[in-house]
Amino acid sequence: MKALRLAALGGPAQLRLDEVDLPRAASDEVVVKVRAAALNHRDVFITKGLYPGIELPRTLGSDGVGELEGRRVVIDPMIGWGDDPRYWNENGTILGMPRDGTFAEYVAVPRANVFDCPPHLSDDEAAAIPLAGLTAFRAVVTRGRVAAGETVLLTGIGGGVQTLALLFAKQAGARVIVTSSSDAKLERARALGADAGVNYRTDAQWYKTVRSLAGGHLDVAIDSAGGETLARALDLMRTGGRVIVYGGTQGEAQIRPFSIFWKHLDVLGTSMGSPGDFAAMLKRFRNGLRPVVDRVFALKDGVAAFERLDQAEQFGKVILRVSA
Amino acid sequence: MKALRLAALGGPAQLRLDEVDLPRAASDEVVVKVRAAALNHRDVFITKGLYPGIELPRTLGSDGVGELEGRRVVIDPMIGWGDDPRYWNENGTILGMPRDGTFAEYVAVPRANVFDCPPHLSDDEAAAIPLAGLTAFRAVVTRGRVAAGETVLLTGIGGGVQTLALLFAKQAGARVIVTSSSDAKLERARALGADAGVNYRTDAQWYKTVRSLAGGHLDVAIDSAGGETLARALDLMRTGGRVIVYGGTQGEAQIRPFSIFWKHLDVLGTSMGSPGDFAAMLKRFRNGLRPVVDRVFALKDGVAAFERLDQAEQFGKVILRVSA
Repeated sequence: MKALRLAALGGPAQLRLDEVDLPRAASDEVVVKVRAAALNHRDVFITKGLYPGIELPRTLGSDGVGELEGRRVVIDPMIGWGDDPRYWNENGTILGMPRDGTFAEYVAVPRANVFDCPPHLSDDEAAAIPLAGLTAFRAVVTRGRVAAGETVLLTGIGGGVQTLALLFAKQAGARVIVTSSSDAKLERARALGADAGVNYRTDAQWYKTVRSLAGGHLDVAIDSAGGETLARALDLMRTGGRVIVYGGTQGEAQIRPFSIFWKHLDVLGTSMGSPGDFAAMLKRFRNGLRPVVDRVFALKDGVAAFERLDQAEQFGKVILRVSA
Repeated sequence: MKALRLAALGGPAQLRLDEVDLPRAASDEVVVKVRAAALNHRDVFITKGLYPGIELPRTLGSDGVGELEGRRVVIDPMIGWGDDPRYWNENGTILGMPRDGTFAEYVAVPRANVFDCPPHLSDDEAAAIPLAGLTAFRAVVTRGRVAAGETVLLTGIGGGVQTLALLFAKQAGARVIVTSSSDAKLERARALGADAGVNYRTDAQWYKTVRSLAGGHLDVAIDSAGGETLARALDLMRTGGRVIVYGGTQGEAQIRPFSIFWKHLDVLGTSMGSPGDFAAMLKRFRNGLRPVVDRVFALKDGVAAFERLDQAEQFGKVILRVSA
């Protein structure tokens, strides 16, 4: 079968469309015929060696929709979360490293990770959901407990997780403020339901603008930037606010403990989600909700797809079409 | 009546033992005849102007035990917490600023803030409980949810809150590791039940020593230092660990978001506690538990008492004896 393999570290240019053996299913596993897959920043980080436990060569890819026993299925990319819904088992892994992933014609996964696909979604849309939807759902609902009428800040709109977090937060009845370095992305976000957008590149005092738009203080902030963005978010929260941290691409944050203790904040880390989160997340799509697809590439054009994500040009998910 | 008043900012030397009018009780208030009071770092900070909303002249003092209608009572220093047990009402205040406090022969407080004193405690011991006990109880129990068998780090043992946190954590069945810059304080903490102590002044790699003593990772850390201490604590936690922040005397902390999201941490701010926390905290003393009294000063020697706290020489609470 054809598979997009990472042969060596050094960025997306090290990906190769190889001919490899079909995967074999272990006793508790199944082999899914992949129709479409989607990229995550994790995949780009792995090509650059910025991820723990990399083994090469390996087929990347955490997100996939495909066929199994006549059903159309989506795959939960969290393998071996464990028994505690509050946090993962440290031995858990994510599909696509170290285990071979979805950027191939077939992928072997545990049977427990296969779920029926929401019927109204196209293959490309369904492929856009798994990792980003799981992360966003856990951030907004399980950890963030976003409620109707609350004001939520989503820092850095445009990626798969934040665009789905926007949809879930609006579905929950929240008011949503987004930030981006791109006016075009802010415009897209408004079209998706965001109530306000702030460009942090052209507005050096973006945090003051957010405070003003929020009418004083935020109830919830959802951030994967870290750095100054996270520090500012802590200072923007109301008493009893919740700051959900699911990444840290800007690196270390210089924070004021005063904001945390004086305002009784909950600063809650999250990564991926439990099987229960995945099942609950899929139900959010039963009512006709659709994820945002940025662009669709053929599997053979995988390097171009990776570069689009690497340059942060996308709004929504970048899809790899594997088979018709 | 006699009252220890702060007339001007400039440190403890600005305190004066004045003769002032008796306090008057508003309709929902009572006047308690104070027997003993206790100092908190808050009082020292106020003398230096390091606190919001200072009004002068004012009688300081958040902690007090005294007599009311023939009963011996302790006073909950949190005035107007509000209806939500999760966090305080922003209009709430703490006894002793801006409202006149307990460093006087009489103090007026809301009737709802008066609780029966645990009978086995001396006046000095009972005075040691209110603010520190409320803060420690909320940190260990309400926010920290410390459970039997867990390993808890208490950074900077010696102050009133951390010594009571030690007692509450041991009462909960936890293993407790403490840090201090003083071997004498570590020895005192061990005598109180601490399982291990690390001197962060003489052991530059104190966090590695803590990790080793913890057998890998901590379940809970309780910190009011901030700065490097808080940053190290985040890195020492197990997956699913809880870091409780109730102060930040070292100032800003340079933290790694990775520790928070990858380990699904709960970083939880807390300050004071609800009326329910106060009542539950007092029950912890029903079984014979006693707080640690460092030294007892007469009210007229208040400046010396403040200086002892300001120089961080104490282990346990510094008490002001107001009347016999």
